[in-house]
Amino acid sequence: MDSESRLVERIARAIPSGIGPWRRRPGEAGGLELRLGIGDDAAVIMPERGEWVLSSDASAEGVHFTTNAHPADSIGYKSLVRATSDLAAMGATPRLFLLTLALPRSRTGRWLDEFLTGMRRAALLLGLRLAGGDTTANPTIFVSITVLGEVMEGRAVTRAGARPGDTIYVSGRLGRAQLGLELILRGIGREPRFGRLVDPHLYPRLRLKLAAWLARERVASAMMDISDGLSTDLARLCARSGVGARLFATRIPRVEVPAIRSVKRGGMKLDSLEMALHGGEDYELLFTVPGRQAQQLARAPGPRELTAIGEITSAKQIVVVGADQHPTRLDSRGWDPFRTRRRSIKERLRG
Amino acid sequence: MDSESRLVERIARAIPSGIGPWRRRPGEAGGLELRLGIGDDAAVIMPERGEWVLSSDASAEGVHFTTNAHPADSIGYKSLVRATSDLAAMGATPRLFLLTLALPRSRTGRWLDEFLTGMRRAALLLGLRLAGGDTTANPTIFVSITVLGEVMEGRAVTRAGARPGDTIYVSGRLGRAQLGLELILRGIGREPRFGRLVDPHLYPRLRLKLAAWLARERVASAMMDISDGLSTDLARLCARSGVGARLFATRIPRVEVPAIRSVKRGGMKLDSLEMALHGGEDYELLFTVPGRQAQQLARAPGPRELTAIGEITSAKQIVVVGADQHPTRLDSRGWDPFRTRRRSIKERLRG
Repeated sequence: MDSESRLVERIARAIPSGIGPWRRRPGEAGGLELRLGIGDDAAVIMPERGEWVLSSDASAEGVHFTTNAHPADSIGYKSLVRATSDLAAMGATPRLFLLTLALPRSRTGRWLDEFLTGMRRAALLLGLRLAGGDTTANPTIFVSITVLGEVMEGRAVTRAGARPGDTIYVSGRLGRAQLGLELILRGIGREPRFGRLVDPHLYPRLRLKLAAWLARERVASAMMDISDGLSTDLARLCARSGVGARLFATRIPRVEVPAIRSVKRGGMKLDSLEMALHGGEDYELLFTVPGRQAQQLARAPGPRELTAIGEITSAKQIVVVGADQHPTRLDSRGWDPFRTRRRSIKERLRG
Repeated sequence: MDSESRLVERIARAIPSGIGPWRRRPGEAGGLELRLGIGDDAAVIMPERGEWVLSSDASAEGVHFTTNAHPADSIGYKSLVRATSDLAAMGATPRLFLLTLALPRSRTGRWLDEFLTGMRRAALLLGLRLAGGDTTANPTIFVSITVLGEVMEGRAVTRAGARPGDTIYVSGRLGRAQLGLELILRGIGREPRFGRLVDPHLYPRLRLKLAAWLARERVASAMMDISDGLSTDLARLCARSGVGARLFATRIPRVEVPAIRSVKRGGMKLDSLEMALHGGEDYELLFTVPGRQAQQLARAPGPRELTAIGEITSAKQIVVVGADQHPTRLDSRGWDPFRTRRRSIKERLRG
């Protein structure tokens, strides 16, 4: 057997990849069946009804992670979670994924086993089955994932449906992943006392149930995940909807920064509002709700995790109203891999 | 607008990406509709009936191409053709694709324009529409593509259906892409007189019509594309089918090597049988036909392009019978990105 085929066998053994129909939970779209999975030219899938949602996402060494700062199992786990987050943000139920894995030969041993362990954990958590992909040698680690999910016809929630007057909500607290990253970059991320703070960066969780509920019940008029930071992602949602937004700084739920000297060193002040506005990778949901739907939110899964942070406006700009009631324009200062001003993780690790 | 969003807009303008249903040609599976394309969290597609075929494929700088040896438009063209070849080899009609594009910042200018021009040409040729993807900065160029196609229910041709006694066919002549690569590696690929010989390496064509016909008419018992070389790919087909094969060397249709001194220099003898057996990237079809279906092949699109090169056997090994009637075991010596014995394109260019 050639070495690429052996690698594919290892991957297929490590990650759920069986054929057959998916078991549907109540309220889920469905009927999808994986008829032919890994090991042939392509996968064959059979839909019964509904719509399909498809998304791709890449994780690159030196850009999204480094092997020094990130354990292999976190890279495997997070690559799959990141890709699935876009799908969940449409309200879809994740079903299957294709994994393109590019590795230096030196990473095909134990590193790969740990990577696959993390990816398996994410696949089981998200209900995903591996249906195929590609493997290749490459100078650096590069993971590209395509995820496919199902949604009831006409229920996918896009970025384009926000209207003036809609209330803007976020789930969870923002800036948690950024704080975790900052602790890692300061070299103190592995201290046991910070484990709870680093986990949101290494092993983020998705709001699958909440997103599916918002789509199914037609409560959200627009929705997306916060992957590149609230300031950047809200600008994208507003651009697609042709609207603007007014946020209230005091309402934005944010991470608490521990008052410990070692956390504050490193030249960069950790400001919880800055991290909530511009920090990426929280994978929380950002969504808008028309006034007539607002009271339904009390029935949402985990209603106490939802916070109204502002409102959609017709003026095509995004402003933040501060504690002093003064509005200032919010620039997109979240994650942007092509912008040179903000340094990549690798550049920051180099110091 | 952030720079990643601008990049996505450029890609969407360059490559067909409109929403709506696909126009079906006679005999094609269908009813598929792209409801939401590029620019949201994910694409939404609506199937009507039939089965879907999904495949991913990666092209990496220094492994599959180099920017010195390969024009940008060839890299764009070929990345999409390579990915689509796996889909075609199931007998499916290509419909849409997701493009994950990882680029150094220095490649986001003119190089990208040329890359997209080549990819656009392939998309139009293959009938593909871009539905989404991801972009990221990366130290080297990395292209990962997921292609989705339709096939009539139960008609996808896998690698697993070959049975002892089936005849083994290939389309076209083998080793053409390898010869083109060898001319490039010898630094003479850009000489106009060799253009015709280099094209199969830079701009390979797929046998979409033939593959779809073989699937629709249920003529082929097993099928795959020859991407990594006949010796490697036939071994994969036989492994999946649990069979062996006997090839006849004199029957294998192969490229003619021009009897020109500059072609023969460079230390490596260009043997047409070696290139036909082990040369990769021809993207011709390899398929098996049961005896009772053989006469139907006369009705296939381009029947003169088809050659019977051997037969499937129950002995689980692959042998080649030489001109002297002597059978020898055929080792898999085609392209294998993880094998260290065979050097990557970049290593070979370094000399």
